[in-house]
Amino acid sequence: MKIGFIGLGRMGEGMAGVLLKAGHEVVVYNRTASKAQALVSQGARHAATVADACHGEVVITMLADDSALEGVVLGKGGVLETLSPGAIHLSMSTISLALSERLTAEHAQAKQRFASAPVFGRPHVAAAGQLFIVASGPKDVLDACQPLLEKMGQKVFPLGEKPRDANLVKLSGNFLIASVIESLGESIALISKAGIDRHAFVEFLTSTLFAAPIYKTYAPIIAEEKYQPPGFAAPLGFKDVKLVLAAAESLRVPLPLGALLRERLVALLAQGGESLDWAAMARLAAQDSGQTSKAS
Amino acid sequence: MKIGFIGLGRMGEGMAGVLLKAGHEVVVYNRTASKAQALVSQGARHAATVADACHGEVVITMLADDSALEGVVLGKGGVLETLSPGAIHLSMSTISLALSERLTAEHAQAKQRFASAPVFGRPHVAAAGQLFIVASGPKDVLDACQPLLEKMGQKVFPLGEKPRDANLVKLSGNFLIASVIESLGESIALISKAGIDRHAFVEFLTSTLFAAPIYKTYAPIIAEEKYQPPGFAAPLGFKDVKLVLAAAESLRVPLPLGALLRERLVALLAQGGESLDWAAMARLAAQDSGQTSKAS
Amino acid sequence: MKIGFIGLGRMGEGMAGVLLKAGHEVVVYNRTASKAQALVSQGARHAATVADACHGEVVITMLADDSALEGVVLGKGGVLETLSPGAIHLSMSTISLALSERLTAEHAQAKQRFASAPVFGRPHVAAAGQLFIVASGPKDVLDACQPLLEKMGQKVFPLGEKPRDANLVKLSGNFLIASVIESLGESIALISKAGIDRHAFVEFLTSTLFAAPIYKTYAPIIAEEKYQPPGFAAPLGFKDVKLVLAAAESLRVPLPLGALLRERLVALLAQGGESLDWAAMARLAAQDSGQTSKAS
Amino acid sequence: MKIGFIGLGRMGEGMAGVLLKAGHEVVVYNRTASKAQALVSQGARHAATVADACHGEVVITMLADDSALEGVVLGKGGVLETLSPGAIHLSMSTISLALSERLTAEHAQAKQRFASAPVFGRPHVAAAGQLFIVASGPKDVLDACQPLLEKMGQKVFPLGEKPRDANLVKLSGNFLIASVIESLGESIALISKAGIDRHAFVEFLTSTLFAAPIYKTYAPIIAEEKYQPPGFAAPLGFKDVKLVLAAAESLRVPLPLGALLRERLVALLAQGGESLDWAAMARLAAQDSGQTSKAS
Repeated sequence: MKIGFIGLGRMGEGMAGVLLKAGHEVVVYNRTASKAQALVSQGARHAATVADACHGEVVITMLADDSALEGVVLGKGGVLETLSPGAIHLSMSTISLALSERLTAEHAQAKQRFASAPVFGRPHVAAAGQLFIVASGPKDVLDACQPLLEKMGQKVFPLGEKPRDANLVKLSGNFLIASVIESLGESIALISKAGIDRHAFVEFLTSTLFAAPIYKTYAPIIAEEKYQPPGFAAPLGFKDVKLVLAAAESLRVPLPLGALLRERLVALLAQGGESLDWAAMARLAAQDSGQTSKAS
Repeated sequence: MKIGFIGLGRMGEGMAGVLLKAGHEVVVYNRTASKAQALVSQGARHAATVADACHGEVVITMLADDSALEGVVLGKGGVLETLSPGAIHLSMSTISLALSERLTAEHAQAKQRFASAPVFGRPHVAAAGQLFIVASGPKDVLDACQPLLEKMGQKVFPLGEKPRDANLVKLSGNFLIASVIESLGESIALISKAGIDRHAFVEFLTSTLFAAPIYKTYAPIIAEEKYQPPGFAAPLGFKDVKLVLAAAESLRVPLPLGALLRERLVALLAQGGESLDWAAMARLAAQDSGQTSKAS
Repeated sequence: MKIGFIGLGRMGEGMAGVLLKAGHEVVVYNRTASKAQALVSQGARHAATVADACHGEVVITMLADDSALEGVVLGKGGVLETLSPGAIHLSMSTISLALSERLTAEHAQAKQRFASAPVFGRPHVAAAGQLFIVASGPKDVLDACQPLLEKMGQKVFPLGEKPRDANLVKLSGNFLIASVIESLGESIALISKAGIDRHAFVEFLTSTLFAAPIYKTYAPIIAEEKYQPPGFAAPLGFKDVKLVLAAAESLRVPLPLGALLRERLVALLAQGGESLDWAAMARLAAQDSGQTSKAS
Repeated sequence: MKIGFIGLGRMGEGMAGVLLKAGHEVVVYNRTASKAQALVSQGARHAATVADACHGEVVITMLADDSALEGVVLGKGGVLETLSPGAIHLSMSTISLALSERLTAEHAQAKQRFASAPVFGRPHVAAAGQLFIVASGPKDVLDACQPLLEKMGQKVFPLGEKPRDANLVKLSGNFLIASVIESLGESIALISKAGIDRHAFVEFLTSTLFAAPIYKTYAPIIAEEKYQPPGFAAPLGFKDVKLVLAAAESLRVPLPLGALLRERLVALLAQGGESLDWAAMARLAAQDSGQTSKAS
């Protein structure tokens, strides 16, 4: 299939690479053009402009935030202006419900097709084509994208017709992850101050009731306070928690735990955590209890 | 081995049964004597008094709370008065750190041996000998109990020399479970109000990042609002969250998420949730968002 | 002095009336022109457009929110385009720090003068010229406005050179008010459920340690559950709490109590509180405790 | 009147002194006898035992906590054993509802009379006879005590027949004070980080909407970070917040703000705040925002 791929950050690069390896014709665009080189050397074509990436059946966007996606889609010479009627914009970024709803409306008006398919997984998972993907949009659009999604992800979860629904599930998933981080932060602060070995605690958790990927990823990070280099940086986590709260606000759903997470992340950023993994919010519980960080 | 077993509630009955099937000589005591009948018909001996259950090498206690355990151990004719020097009291109840520390001191003074080995699992898991057990106490005591623990549990996690450490890990585990319930409650309230199918959401979570027993147990309960009959009743959950906060207070560890959970459970009890599973605290998020319960 | 006054809501109408009575030449503008009639009958001149209100030495804006103020100031034919160099825009609305900072920059570029002077008080207080006013901006601007501020307020508190500082103090004041409402809500829920007379409780508080206007205003409202008609409607209160959190976020200050207030207000709006006074968030504490509202 | 006065801490000494100056015959008891000397030199009689202080018409207790009061009243040779039938025990300490209810029952059984009259005010206020007093108990008991209460307090608020009601109002008052401290802590952290003068902010608050004694007391303490010497030490404040939460728990009233305050105080104690005024919990908000304390 002829595919445009816009956004070659740590996630996007891996995802585009997977499509390339699968034999698709991939035209890649990135604001900082140098990031396209590795893919070009693997056979991708380089698009000098957003418009150049919009000549295929599908253009995939994988960008950092609402603002970046707005720039690429709604700006002059953007996706909305240049994509052919009937062609598909598959949005895989983690974005707000509001923007997802706006894109749904704008693409409909332009007779273009649109679906959301945000992903779960860190960069090395993306590069291995092992992401978990939640997808929603009109059935024909999802059907058309299914072969691509199956390459990029180990499993695809269809969530109905409304594109914003997949975005909300993605945000809800990140809220659940942040909740896990906070609960681990508090419990590890507790058992640590009691003098219990934190690795034994983590070993116990992750081999019994909490034997899920998310605990296996984050419990060791928190127990060892290995917040650098960040797998998912604190400002990105903060952005996502704010997007969850914004979605919850617009739907009128109070999230007291979400609110707690937000303030924790503000504290983390206030105390110099900009370049740390968002899991570093877990160390605030230890700090509040008077325990000095191992890391410092 | 000759074992006394005190406390034949839904958990204790299953655990004693497992020991019996493994060929041990089990003397069972329960305040309400009728509960001993099933085990007696399987070969257990019935103890008319606590003291009668204290003539073996080990006496196991599995009681509902601090107060019940205090009655049995510290009361007139209790375990402390009647257990032989060198014999072992293996405390498997979920109790406070304060009581665990007190029993450690009292048994030491009486030259008796003491260890803590609280368990994770619901009654049918106990009956199948598939509990997860965290154990702490002097090495010789844990070694002596190991054959029993291995029968009752699928896995035993040793946590060092101090009996109260296993109690704290048990309480921390329950805190983590309550945190999962709250986070699921809020996220399911959110996606439900957006009109997303809650079963698809649960299916997604429990087959990907959150594929752990605890999510597989609780997410469907919350999605279906099946809070009756209770697997673990709200007042028991409330008791445990309070024990976590009491432990955290004595160790001077603030737990903001723990505090949120406590208030949720007060609200649940205030609104008639006494006989519901503690997971019913999850419905408060939906209720706060103006969604009426399916169950009502 | 020749003054333009833009925004004749319940607050603005009273404030403009006070200036008129003090003998100033007041040109009034309101989007819904009919609201200007009462003032015109008292001697005000009616401006058909925003620009018509911008020919004096000072133009005062008193609008509902950021968006309304942006429309009036930054829109085509707005204050920024039409105000003479050297003339003053005195912004008295409760707005975000971000907008205040933007207006500071834009007016500076246009060689116009700018200051912020948000107010505390309900409509009847505004009509009586008895507001409390916090004011910040360049000294010459505040000096020039002082005679006007002294008419509209019983007391003016100067807060330095940066216009956004007065806006932040205004927002912080509203945060403190919301905190009072929440604390009264919880404590009145508590003593009410104990069967203690809530009016005796309020009488005690407001004649002793809490004998401040804000408790005297809100404690009786909460005790009597008189949330209609709203003195300050829930959506406006919600807007302000969000503005505080936005300011705190940009300054990197976690506000856990602010976060609690935000979620309470989401719950109030979710449960049909759109047309109630924001103090109605206090009834959520009673409701959570299983007490049914007197009002319902 | 012949009065026994038990408990000569910083509050009790002042209160007993006021009664003495008013011409009453006061027999004073304190565990540490040396504290009685100043009063004895002013004409009080010294009681060598609790029982010696129980021969009058009224015995007043003013002790630090439940445990101290239990010791004095329920212990061997205590008030309950030695007070004559018909004589009055007037409990002025800040204690739990549970203990108040227990004393009500025990005194009734012993045919003694009992009322609660906890107080608001710091030591110098007590010494000046200017406390605020909330009182509840049977009408005849309150009537009999009224002349004493009027000497000790500037105002007495009767709250009905049940002694525990005055205790609950006292605890609720302390909850409201702690809420004020937290809200001031957060707002002062916010305006300080914005560079606004905190004294101007305090001046504004306390001369307008928040012109109540409690803000006038605490806002300057927080703005200046003068947490030593403590007027009311952090451990006492923590005890009271816990008593509020215990009362709320028994009445089934969730207090999310109360829960937040509790965790703040745990953090303060965890970080070395044992000897500071409880208002020092306000500095945690500043600290979380990355502002270093002026005091350190």
